[in-house]
Amino acid sequence: MRLYRKAKRLGIWDPAAIDLGRDVEDWRRLSDDERDLLLRATALFQAGEESVVHDLVPLMLVIAREGRLEEELFLTTFLFEEAKHTEFFRRVLDEVVGEPGDLTRFETPSYRAIFYEELPAAMGALLDDPSPAAQARALVTYNMIVEGVLAETGYHGYFAALARQGLMPGLQKGLALLKRDESRHIGYGVYALSRLVRADPALWDVVEARMSELLPQAVGVVEETFAPYDPVPFGLELGEFVAYATGKFQKRYARIERARETAPKTA
Amino acid sequence: MRLYRKAKRLGIWDPAAIDLGRDVEDWRRLSDDERDLLLRATALFQAGEESVVHDLVPLMLVIAREGRLEEELFLTTFLFEEAKHTEFFRRVLDEVVGEPGDLTRFETPSYRAIFYEELPAAMGALLDDPSPAAQARALVTYNMIVEGVLAETGYHGYFAALARQGLMPGLQKGLALLKRDESRHIGYGVYALSRLVRADPALWDVVEARMSELLPQAVGVVEETFAPYDPVPFGLELGEFVAYATGKFQKRYARIERARETAPKTA
Repeated sequence: MRLYRKAKRLGIWDPAAIDLGRDVEDWRRLSDDERDLLLRATALFQAGEESVVHDLVPLMLVIAREGRLEEELFLTTFLFEEAKHTEFFRRVLDEVVGEPGDLTRFETPSYRAIFYEELPAAMGALLDDPSPAAQARALVTYNMIVEGVLAETGYHGYFAALARQGLMPGLQKGLALLKRDESRHIGYGVYALSRLVRADPALWDVVEARMSELLPQAVGVVEETFAPYDPVPFGLELGEFVAYATGKFQKRYARIERARETAPKTA
Repeated sequence: MRLYRKAKRLGIWDPAAIDLGRDVEDWRRLSDDERDLLLRATALFQAGEESVVHDLVPLMLVIAREGRLEEELFLTTFLFEEAKHTEFFRRVLDEVVGEPGDLTRFETPSYRAIFYEELPAAMGALLDDPSPAAQARALVTYNMIVEGVLAETGYHGYFAALARQGLMPGLQKGLALLKRDESRHIGYGVYALSRLVRADPALWDVVEARMSELLPQAVGVVEETFAPYDPVPFGLELGEFVAYATGKFQKRYARIERARETAPKTA
């Protein structure tokens, strides 16, 4: 409910209202490699945000059926925000980039494995199997890996690259708002996973197994995205990203693990 | 997309920001019958809005799977708005009414038939059967009957009763915003049903059959809600409601029917 209230207060920005005029000029002045990296990032984020709109729907259905009204209310803001993120990146592609061509060329094997296989499978499974274990796998996939590692780390680097150089103020502004939305979404994932683990500490093993399964693929996405560049434009460094992702991940991991310890002791 | 843009511009009101101070005072001054009718209406709308949050989710899933991204974006605003309506009526019950007791006492047989049987069955059916005919039945039930007849007519009367007497300004304000949201939702229903009928004019029979099946139950809800009062408080009249509901309904019915005539002629 705290997250729902925050979402209503902070999450009401409109992607259509962000001025991309300076961004169009800045885009023209970039080097080929810089343009290529920014286009790659925008294309992957746009496709990713589009996927997460669809893939959240089965989770909503399960939460609604369990009668968790407050979580359901929050999830409506969550879904609306993902839709706005999709719209924002579409605007950047249409208005700043212009004619980007076929964007699926940027999708690497690890990216495809996560967004075309792991994510839709883990979320879609909830339609037939709404068990706590299936929910835990879905939440780890969606909130911990896709949002917590890929989106958050990606937006951090994407934003930092532009902010350091004072480039593309409209895109910077949208990314700052997007990051704020994502951190509420990840907050929900940590909350819901902790609730599940507190109710049944044995679920911690499911959480841990799923994390170990997906973390290498998530790191693979970051590596494969940087692989074409030498040096990486905007002074970005792979190590910096991996450190950022790992640091955030470990803090959340520890919070959910604590839920196991505070679980009521039952036979 | 036009509805999505409108939703972002107009649909961002926050139920928590509406001042209900005067409403609490006005409530104390009402007669027993007036209080009973307002509480009845609020209870039924609160339960109804809670139902429509859940019941929309299967439709979203179908629209997402069909790759209709713009409709999916709009549906995220739709769902967020229904969540806010639920929240608004909960606030009225908690802060204005205080201790309302068990609210299911207000649910009449027709109300239960629509909200506990027809609506969840028609929407839930989409999970197993996403065919155009099943979609048409779901859209008629949700958008034409529940929103187009029950919610719109109900909000119209509820608002008119308070506005005529200058009572409960916070509730009036919330209802005005809610009505605006609902009219976008019904607009989407008309759009989606027209799209289905244009693609396959034979679906018009499905639409018509479903409407005839549910319209008597919807009128039953209105009649049963007024039945306990003689005279009906606030000078409300049953005939006025039925005329309003029928008028709106016929206009929409005619628009969807026209889609059948503009369908491309195929063998």
